[in-house]
Amino acid sequence: MSLTVSNAIPPSIGHEIIERLHILAQYTEQEGMMTRTYLTPAHRGAAGQIAAWMRDAGMTVRRDAVGNVIGRYEGIDTSQAVLMTGSHFDTVRNGGIYDGLLGILLPISCIASWHKQGKRFPFPIEVIAFSEEEGVRFKAPMLGSRAIAGTFEQRVLNHTDNQGITMRDAMKAADLNPLQISAAAAARDSIAAFVEVHIEQGPVLLNEDLPLGVVTAIAGATRYMLELEGLAGHAGTVPMHMRHDAAMAAAEFALYVEQRCSSKPDLVGTIGQWTVPNGATNVIPGRAILSLDVRAGDDAERLAATADITAELERICARRKVRSTLTKTYETSSAICADWLQAGWQAALQRNGCALRSLPSGAGHDAMAIAAVAPIAMLFVRCGNGGTSHHPTETMTMEDAALASEVFMDFVEHFDTLSAGRKAA
Amino acid sequence: MSLTVSNAIPPSIGHEIIERLHILAQYTEQEGMMTRTYLTPAHRGAAGQIAAWMRDAGMTVRRDAVGNVIGRYEGIDTSQAVLMTGSHFDTVRNGGIYDGLLGILLPISCIASWHKQGKRFPFPIEVIAFSEEEGVRFKAPMLGSRAIAGTFEQRVLNHTDNQGITMRDAMKAADLNPLQISAAAAARDSIAAFVEVHIEQGPVLLNEDLPLGVVTAIAGATRYMLELEGLAGHAGTVPMHMRHDAAMAAAEFALYVEQRCSSKPDLVGTIGQWTVPNGATNVIPGRAILSLDVRAGDDAERLAATADITAELERICARRKVRSTLTKTYETSSAICADWLQAGWQAALQRNGCALRSLPSGAGHDAMAIAAVAPIAMLFVRCGNGGTSHHPTETMTMEDAALASEVFMDFVEHFDTLSAGRKAA
Repeated sequence: MSLTVSNAIPPSIGHEIIERLHILAQYTEQEGMMTRTYLTPAHRGAAGQIAAWMRDAGMTVRRDAVGNVIGRYEGIDTSQAVLMTGSHFDTVRNGGIYDGLLGILLPISCIASWHKQGKRFPFPIEVIAFSEEEGVRFKAPMLGSRAIAGTFEQRVLNHTDNQGITMRDAMKAADLNPLQISAAAAARDSIAAFVEVHIEQGPVLLNEDLPLGVVTAIAGATRYMLELEGLAGHAGTVPMHMRHDAAMAAAEFALYVEQRCSSKPDLVGTIGQWTVPNGATNVIPGRAILSLDVRAGDDAERLAATADITAELERICARRKVRSTLTKTYETSSAICADWLQAGWQAALQRNGCALRSLPSGAGHDAMAIAAVAPIAMLFVRCGNGGTSHHPTETMTMEDAALASEVFMDFVEHFDTLSAGRKAA
Repeated sequence: MSLTVSNAIPPSIGHEIIERLHILAQYTEQEGMMTRTYLTPAHRGAAGQIAAWMRDAGMTVRRDAVGNVIGRYEGIDTSQAVLMTGSHFDTVRNGGIYDGLLGILLPISCIASWHKQGKRFPFPIEVIAFSEEEGVRFKAPMLGSRAIAGTFEQRVLNHTDNQGITMRDAMKAADLNPLQISAAAAARDSIAAFVEVHIEQGPVLLNEDLPLGVVTAIAGATRYMLELEGLAGHAGTVPMHMRHDAAMAAAEFALYVEQRCSSKPDLVGTIGQWTVPNGATNVIPGRAILSLDVRAGDDAERLAATADITAELERICARRKVRSTLTKTYETSSAICADWLQAGWQAALQRNGCALRSLPSGAGHDAMAIAAVAPIAMLFVRCGNGGTSHHPTETMTMEDAALASEVFMDFVEHFDTLSAGRKAA
């Protein structure tokens, strides 16, 4: 690992980020766990704290109609397109404290540092604390970034939480006006770029002993539910060759998915749910229900894989005389990170003595929604604990936070040149 | 299929058996389902009806301390060892109406036929309607046959049913005396042989278009619970080669079990329970819990298979870096059917123009318990509906019931010669 700290950065910046992550961790719905879902008191408390830090950093702050907290560090030319950054401040249930928040607190600390030095850029910078990304409370993800992108779906206002409260009513109770959501959308040319700093949520950087990585694309995904129906039978009385065991068909299918998705480095396939209804020791499984999730940074690669997987499923089921019902439940294309922004991150990494590593993001992020209205890019920061995320053991180091801040500041300081070069090209 | 009906048998015998099976089906705990567990009103009602039919058939009837209903058709020599036959009259929940009962009603009808003709044998015949075999109500199987075999375990008297009633109290409420159970045991030399007629509960005879088969052995079984522990992770962010997916290890293990157990015709291996705790579409399974049930008529074959399976499990888990905990939960040796009795069934089949087919019983039966005190043998009768049993679709035909009666009567009519030949050998 290469860890050079430039002179320009106060060594305390990593410390401040980590400290603030722990302060925000106190805004939780569940004692002893990190749970902060959309518009709960914990969520609104965190929003207030973030707004306060934005103001301290010299930003003007406003809240939009979906509860995004938007801090603006004005540019010398107030009419220039904005360099937008940020991430989300909601969490999954019993999640970690770094996911999302890092991408909010890091730029706030960097801007505070510039503000202290009286430094301004030609362009305005906006830090957006997206109010909702995980989709936990109302089973609808990326509410905050979709509102900014103008892709917020009005029908989700009718979604209800576990208590039967509609999203619309929850918004009103939080003094948000659902009728104003469309007004929250950014105009197409108003954003020069959106860049998001985020923990990797995976083990790639950790395993290669690298603190930072440049994201190439946010993976597209196809999800299915698969129901297999064979023939239940007595575990003792049906000879092996006469069986139509639904779970054995599932096992064979799963191993094919594993093998097929291992054939390309940026392709992944996961069977996360395995259910054998009424499974009993002495009964041959007659039914099995599986989920399948296939992702790749490259859409063509994902579609080729799902085509092969579907074909193999048919072969397996024909041979085993097991019926299959494969239902596509979700599909989304990948969001490509703009080449010129990736190049900008790479240059910043090089100037700071960091090795270059590009990787796709298998997880979805707010940047995916913003891609609808602006060029996007992401910087990944290494996680500890095997890359675990969405879990209490999620972690990252203060040193990596400091290094990411340094690279982020370097990126921003070169953004005008980068942007001009792109326009010239 | 060969279906010869001899002149000696009233053609109505198959009809009577099927009719009585349907009459007994009315003794159920659950309207519209066949559920008759130990000592419930339905169970006691069935016992009374069976006793009445035994008396009509010319037998003396008694009830022993575990509620077995024992009909005795006296021999010319009352002191000779008994030819014992029978099966159980309890059922699983929502089971079939043929399982067990056939082996009680068939000999009753045959004896009724001899009784009508005034025919007696040198030896006494006892038909035992075993009160409990399935182990449903008190989670302890074969109570009836174990009492006769002298292997009833006193500690099961403390088992409780779903209502918290102990077996001991249930027995007292049914006017049974738990203190007398040991007295129910048969003396070692008092039983010349135990033969049990039973539906196959599998598809072998059906698939070969054969009505009857001779059982070679009741399979021994080894059961395990397997817990696999890998590493949970985000379905999008962990590359395939970095995963330690517990469910994929389970899938590979399952396919090995299937392959290994397919290598010998009388060996079966079943993974009936598959559980991936907290399985979610976007989470790589960190844990998987499976059951494993391995059975074979030949104990050496079963033990060789379980040794191979255990070794392969270790290889799979070492390669995948997944931890495994394999716990043996049950093990029982096979019960071999006596050669001379198998030969007796075969001779009876041949005399009745039936093809010879020998097969092991993968399911446990009362004969398994009786094997502790007497030579045993079984005659299997073909099931319909793919061999389904323990299910409402369990079925068999009147023609097969008639043919099995004919073969049973032939077997008994030649038993004295068979037995004498065995003693001389």
